[in-house]
Amino acid sequence: MRQPAPARIGDAAEDVDTPALLIDLDAFERNLDKMAAFAKDAGVRLRPHSKTHKSAHIARLQMERGAVGVCCQKVSEAEALVQSGINDVLISNEVVGRHKLNRLSALARHAKVAVCADDADNVIDLNAAAGQVGVTLDVLVEIDVGAGRCGIAPGAPAVDLAKLIDGSRNLRFSGLQAYQGSAQHIRDFAERKMAINAAQVLTKQTIEQLAEAGLDCETIGGAGTGTYEFHIGSKAWNELQCGSYVFMDTDYGKNRMADGSMFTEFENALFVLATVMSKTTDDFCVVDAGHKALGNDQGFPRVLDLDEVAYSHPSDEHGRLDLSETKQALKLGDKVKLIPGHCDPTVNLYDWYVGVRNGRVEALWQVTARGALT
Amino acid sequence: MRQPAPARIGDAAEDVDTPALLIDLDAFERNLDKMAAFAKDAGVRLRPHSKTHKSAHIARLQMERGAVGVCCQKVSEAEALVQSGINDVLISNEVVGRHKLNRLSALARHAKVAVCADDADNVIDLNAAAGQVGVTLDVLVEIDVGAGRCGIAPGAPAVDLAKLIDGSRNLRFSGLQAYQGSAQHIRDFAERKMAINAAQVLTKQTIEQLAEAGLDCETIGGAGTGTYEFHIGSKAWNELQCGSYVFMDTDYGKNRMADGSMFTEFENALFVLATVMSKTTDDFCVVDAGHKALGNDQGFPRVLDLDEVAYSHPSDEHGRLDLSETKQALKLGDKVKLIPGHCDPTVNLYDWYVGVRNGRVEALWQVTARGALT
Repeated sequence: MRQPAPARIGDAAEDVDTPALLIDLDAFERNLDKMAAFAKDAGVRLRPHSKTHKSAHIARLQMERGAVGVCCQKVSEAEALVQSGINDVLISNEVVGRHKLNRLSALARHAKVAVCADDADNVIDLNAAAGQVGVTLDVLVEIDVGAGRCGIAPGAPAVDLAKLIDGSRNLRFSGLQAYQGSAQHIRDFAERKMAINAAQVLTKQTIEQLAEAGLDCETIGGAGTGTYEFHIGSKAWNELQCGSYVFMDTDYGKNRMADGSMFTEFENALFVLATVMSKTTDDFCVVDAGHKALGNDQGFPRVLDLDEVAYSHPSDEHGRLDLSETKQALKLGDKVKLIPGHCDPTVNLYDWYVGVRNGRVEALWQVTARGALT
Repeated sequence: MRQPAPARIGDAAEDVDTPALLIDLDAFERNLDKMAAFAKDAGVRLRPHSKTHKSAHIARLQMERGAVGVCCQKVSEAEALVQSGINDVLISNEVVGRHKLNRLSALARHAKVAVCADDADNVIDLNAAAGQVGVTLDVLVEIDVGAGRCGIAPGAPAVDLAKLIDGSRNLRFSGLQAYQGSAQHIRDFAERKMAINAAQVLTKQTIEQLAEAGLDCETIGGAGTGTYEFHIGSKAWNELQCGSYVFMDTDYGKNRMADGSMFTEFENALFVLATVMSKTTDDFCVVDAGHKALGNDQGFPRVLDLDEVAYSHPSDEHGRLDLSETKQALKLGDKVKLIPGHCDPTVNLYDWYVGVRNGRVEALWQVTARGALT
């Protein structure tokens, strides 16, 4: 059962029930516009990652601004978005197991669907599943360009896998997935750039070896919000897969720009509205947002406009706000906007976005692929 | 939209799509039976906390075994459970804000509903909201017995608040909420017991002062899975609110019993089934369960029956299994059962429980109050 929406269109923003996921629509739209313009100016395609927002509506807003489609991380995310009208999805991830391969192949009859692979046996399984449904699947070879997670070794192993795909009756080799996930949150600008330069060398070498083998890469995908600008002009990547830029979070906010200042390329557009639900001392109060309302895996949220108030001690349904620096700041029933530590797992906890502009609720959007795990 | 179930009744357990939330039904039923028998033998009521399982069906199984009702942490949890047939809920938490008070009062027309309070203004608001709907709300005074979260100070402040409730036309003072949350995971047995002894002193003093003021406590609620046995025979608590005992998790597993051995009073009955989705080296493999599939806030999961394989490096949709101690243990497509670090926030990520017995899927139960945040 989807939860009821915590607000109605036209409500005052402060009247939204809590905890709720608020979008500052002005900031959000500026973020969308900025990344769209960046990709256009740079002459690369933009295929934003929907694992951040899990929303068919936001995917549409991105595609209206020029995105060629979206990335998903799970077959179930792709199913949810396709069912809601998104017609071009890349599963930027491996898909393993009979049920998932059946679902992936079936979905490819209803939308343009591509997937990644890093294993020969998996390619054989992909080919068989596609053949059973009578579709041709686009397959990218994922190479490990430094993240140490998924991805086959660049160079000869990747070329061999690409050849296997290319020789599979029901598959089409369509390029490389070359995402350096572990570089996204390297705080120092130069170090972050260096990690992408290293990834670029590996990616370009692989592209060249593929060309020698007669295999052309239609797509070379990669890049995240922390590194998008380093992927330009490299002649390696031609498709950016950034996701978090739509919302930002405190973790990305800790990255540094070239001059050492905080990363402010994109604006905080996502907030968890929370209520002070207990205040029995002057030293702290308790808000109604804990682990079930916030993705705390990359650090705790910041309180918007109350930098001197630290969030701490989250339990499942509670969080503590330290008032020792500002004893009179908050009273029972007050609402605060928390900037999530990590936007992706935070969004996954909610059924609804509450879009706010000029102090009023303007939009209620479903988190289409909330809980899409498989 | 609720996600489709990841299995069908009768499927082989290993054929369940992943990630999925599995219940070992035999172990689960033994856990239910054991706590029910304990409470019965001890002569106290059992009101298990549904914040762990969020399931109307599991609440019914608990009540069939003698539980008087369940605790909830949120009005929306209570709404979901009442709508699914649970007729006695205590919101063991404060409820603050106009919308929530309206919903709480409305719900009290449809089930036996009680709530906690730790603030005089909140009591006034509760009384007004109940009056508007024409109901009488049962209210417990929450006292802080050492956790430092919600709860008014024990003794005189609690008595004053109880008097205010007692004098409110639409409220009924029904006792004390005296939960020592921070004691639940104190690892050492004696220290854990000591924390509850301290809570007991404060609780009994408050009960006595209330009696002097002519106020009787119908309910004195508290206790969790880590401390339930210490609440017995104290003549303080008469209602146990344990939740995690139904499933257990690795965090509770780290508690120590009286003889220093690991806490094994209850069995691990909850698992996240995950698939090896990438294996490009002998040293590690990647499973399809990360932060969106596991509550990692109290530590990472353990791999059932593979103690030498450590889970690490979770990202949103991935986790790494270290194979350095056992290089041949796992191959692509293999499934593993992960014992969650923390059961409550893990359950909240899923729409379905998959109940398994004798290697077959026997039950598909909805996580009724999944995402019930408000």
